[in-house]
Order: sequence, then structure tokens, then C-alpha cells
Amino acid sequence: MSGLGLFSVVGLGVTERVRVACCQIAPDVTDRVASAAASTAAIAAAIDRGAQIVVLPELASSGYVFESAEEARAAAIASDDELLASWSAEAARGDAIVVGGFCELAADGRVFNSAALVDADGVRAVYRKLHLWHDERRWFSPGEQAAPVVDTAFGRIGLAVCYDLEFPELTRGLALAGADLIAAPTNWPRQPDPPDGRPILHSIAAVTAYLNKVFVAVCDRCGTERGLAFEGGSVIATPLGEASTAPVAAAGMVLAECDLAGASDKRLGQDNDVFGDRRPEHYRLAPP
Amino acid sequence: MSGLGLFSVVGLGVTERVRVACCQIAPDVTDRVASAAASTAAIAAAIDRGAQIVVLPELASSGYVFESAEEARAAAIASDDELLASWSAEAARGDAIVVGGFCELAADGRVFNSAALVDADGVRAVYRKLHLWHDERRWFSPGEQAAPVVDTAFGRIGLAVCYDLEFPELTRGLALAGADLIAAPTNWPRQPDPPDGRPILHSIAAVTAYLNKVFVAVCDRCGTERGLAFEGGSVIATPLGEASTAPVAAAGMVLAECDLAGASDKRLGQDNDVFGDRRPEHYRLAPP
Repeated sequence: MSGLGLFSVVGLGVTERVRVACCQIAPDVTDRVASAAASTAAIAAAIDRGAQIVVLPELASSGYVFESAEEARAAAIASDDELLASWSAEAARGDAIVVGGFCELAADGRVFNSAALVDADGVRAVYRKLHLWHDERRWFSPGEQAAPVVDTAFGRIGLAVCYDLEFPELTRGLALAGADLIAAPTNWPRQPDPPDGRPILHSIAAVTAYLNKVFVAVCDRCGTERGLAFEGGSVIATPLGEASTAPVAAAGMVLAECDLAGASDKRLGQDNDVFGDRRPEHYRLAPP
Repeated sequence: MSGLGLFSVVGLGVTERVRVACCQIAPDVTDRVASAAASTAAIAAAIDRGAQIVVLPELASSGYVFESAEEARAAAIASDDELLASWSAEAARGDAIVVGGFCELAADGRVFNSAALVDADGVRAVYRKLHLWHDERRWFSPGEQAAPVVDTAFGRIGLAVCYDLEFPELTRGLALAGADLIAAPTNWPRQPDPPDGRPILHSIAAVTAYLNKVFVAVCDRCGTERGLAFEGGSVIATPLGEASTAPVAAAGMVLAECDLAGASDKRLGQDNDVFGDRRPEHYRLAPP
């Protein structure tokens, strides 16, 4: 069992609570064996705390700061790899769901920055990151399918990976497709301290949750790789825009009890509904 | 000249700064003459401070808490009303732009919750709020045209009114249509103090600005009408997600110097571009 400490347990929402955990860990791109073991140990620690949905960071299987396409390819694993099987085994122990980022080797030989949703039966869905950040396009192919929403025993889980969160069309689309929770593995580079003390990643999660009336679980990584420091900005945000956050940069677990069933209610007061009030014919989303 | 006090002058952005003011005032629905006069006086105070773009709250002409459709109709003015002419006269004095909310009586007799963009030459654009909140649908007709982006000497200004800001498709659309600044008159009901001390309106403005790489100027109202207290949550946010805010609930002016020309640059670092990186074919914005 991992020594991963617990930051907080917070009750969010009212009924039918689902225990969601974000495991803020520090994979190490120079030690894949240790990174892989740490990812499974983090799941184990979350299951021991009663987590029903466990979110891991982006590229939890491998670490992030590759130096070449060859290095990324050497680190890539297929979605039937034993590592994801070990995630599934831990999920089975708690009858839980795991969402985690991994460096994927596709059957056609391409390498993707992917997230898997895993349960006791194995891999339920793989999402390949649509929006590649910075050097990622040097070693990853961009995804070619919309981000999925997966029906689970605990609610409908939409997947996104890191920079995807900066595209409000993608998160809105997940909510419109029925997501109660958006689970987002991230590897957010450390930002300068904002004037108001709130990392922009926390604000993005809170506003995405509030505008779409969904829960948003961002599992960020911490630590430093090859000189790049990461934010450690994990956050679980509610449809009211409230956020339970990790202390920036530290390793640990954010755990929140979330009324995921309540997220299907899009009403705002007696007269409004955030989906029903939409006026799609008047949005100018196609370039002029 | 109004006694409207100044909250803050902040330099935001680097070059070609445009001075943007949000005048956080308290119209009174029971005293239209005083409300109208206060709106013009607030513009005058902002012009005296050197403002080049002045934003007033939603329904600055009339106040907000109507009790009946008849009362709203009686308060409604045409877009060629002398009040908007007085806004234009003040704008002319500073060679400035004014964006303000007004209760509009249309030529066909319908009543709209509208925002006007006014300069020295008069009314340049009228936008009729697309998303009506709560009781508003009892007295206002919903708008039937997309929110506009108006080319001005200081930059391209997109218009939105209050609840519109909760539709990320609308604000994204304004940015894609070229807005450098989204000017949003609001009348935001007072919310419970958030756990992190930051009103959700401030977070929405900051995240909207950050995700779209635009400036966002939200001019909220303060005060209480017929038992309804307003937030007084005015905020000017930058493409970096930084926000200059008003002290909640107090009357006063938020003034910020904004590099509006810089908002046309959508690059993020050397490899990314928040518009160029979009994958519209994979967003699920149409209901399944």
C-alpha cells in the first residue's frame, strides 16, 4: 500500500454521494518501472480510503518530459498492457472505476497521449488527447475521435486530458453528451503565483463545473522532471463552482463525496435551465 | 459631475493601452429620472478620469426589479431616446465609447433587455439579450440576433448581457468573431460568500478572458431594489486570467489600462494557438 497522504475529505452535494479521489503523484520519466508501480500504488491507497472513482494524472504510466519521439515510443504501452490490468485489479478490489493517463502505443504503431477508463472488467474506454500541448506534437499523434462519455455504475464519466480543458466547446460537449463528472488527468506546468492566489487551473475547473452543472475532477501531477516543475493543482469542483483543492505542488490525495446523480439536473432556480436556455442558432462557433 | 469614487487604476497588458472603466452604480427602478441621470453622470465621471471605453450595468436606464410587464413597458425607451443621446454627448466629450444596458421599446412594440454601444456619432449597435433570467421573460422578449462585435477606434468590442456570460458558446463565438474586449453589462443578484472568497462572477470573467485570450469588462450594479440585493461584482479581466475587481457591493469605478490590440494574438507559447488548436469536428455541441 502506498504512503500517499490524504489532503481532505469533503462532502460535496447532498444525496447518493460517490467518493471521488484525485491522486496527485509525481511520475518520473527516467524511471518507468517506478512510475508504473506508483500509479498502481496510488489507486490502492485511494481504494483503501473508500474511493469509488479514482483519477490519476496524465501520462501516469510514463512521466511527461520526453526528450525524443524514440523515448516516448519506448515508453508507450498498448491498452491491453499489464499495467492497465493492474489498475483493473485494484479497481476490482473496491468495485471502483479508474481514470488515468497513459502513453499509448496503438495497433498501427502510432503513439498517443491517452486516458483509459478501467473497471473490474478491464479497459472500458480509451480517449486519445485531441489538443496537443507544446512539444507533445513531436512525439504524439493527435486524437481523431471525440472525447467519450462512459456510463458507469456511479454515473456518466466524460474524459478530457489537460490542455483539452482550455477548450470550452469540448467540456460543454461532454456535458451535453450527458457527463455527470468530467475526469481530467493533467500535467500542468507550474505557473507564477496568481495575484489572487488562485491557480488558473482551479478557476477553470470551478467555472467549467458551474457553467455546465457537472462535477469536474482534475488530477494533476506534482514534482519536477528534467527541470520542468509541475503545478500540483488537483481539484474537484462542484456544479455550484465550489472547489476542493490540493495544496499546490505537494503529493497527496484529494477526496470528495459528490452527488453525481444531481448533475443531471440542469435547472437554475424555478425558471431557468442551463441547457434548455441555450440558443445554439445564435452562437458564432464557425469562423466567419 | 458625479461623485462616483475610483476603486483602482491598474495597468493590464503592455502596449497601446486603452483605458476601460466599469461604473458600478445602483439604478432605482422606482425612480427612473434619477436612474437615467445617474447613468449619464457615471459616464461623465469616467470620461473625467480619461476612460476611452465606459461600461454601465444592465438596465442602467431603468433599474431591474420590475413588478409587471406594464411597469417594464412604461420604463422602456427607444434606441433614439434622449437618454442614449446624452450618453453619446458624454462619449463625444472624451472621444470615447459607451456600452450600457437599457430597457428597450422596439419599433414593433416589444420590450427587450438590451445593451447599446454608443459613440460621439450616436448609437452604433443595439444587442438584445439572448438568454433571459428568471422573471425577465415575464416582461422582455428574448433577442433574435447573435451578439455583435463592433469595430471601434480602440478595438473590436463584443457585447453580452449578464446571464449570457454563463453560455461559453456565446463568449467563445464573440472571440471567434474577432472581439478584443467583451463588454458585459450585468445585474448579478447577490450570492452567498463563496468558500474561497471569490465571487463566481469574477471567476467566470477571468476564465472567459483566459480561455479566449480576450479582455472581459463586466460592469455589475450594486444596491438593493425591492428586497433584491445585487452583487456589485464588477471586474475587468485580462487574457492571462488576471482580474481587477470592485469591492463587492460598493458604488464606484473600476478602471484598467488594457492592451486591447494584444488580444488579437491567440498564441500560447511558441507551439500553440488557442484558436488554431481547436478541433471543431470533434466537439459535441449538437444534442445527440
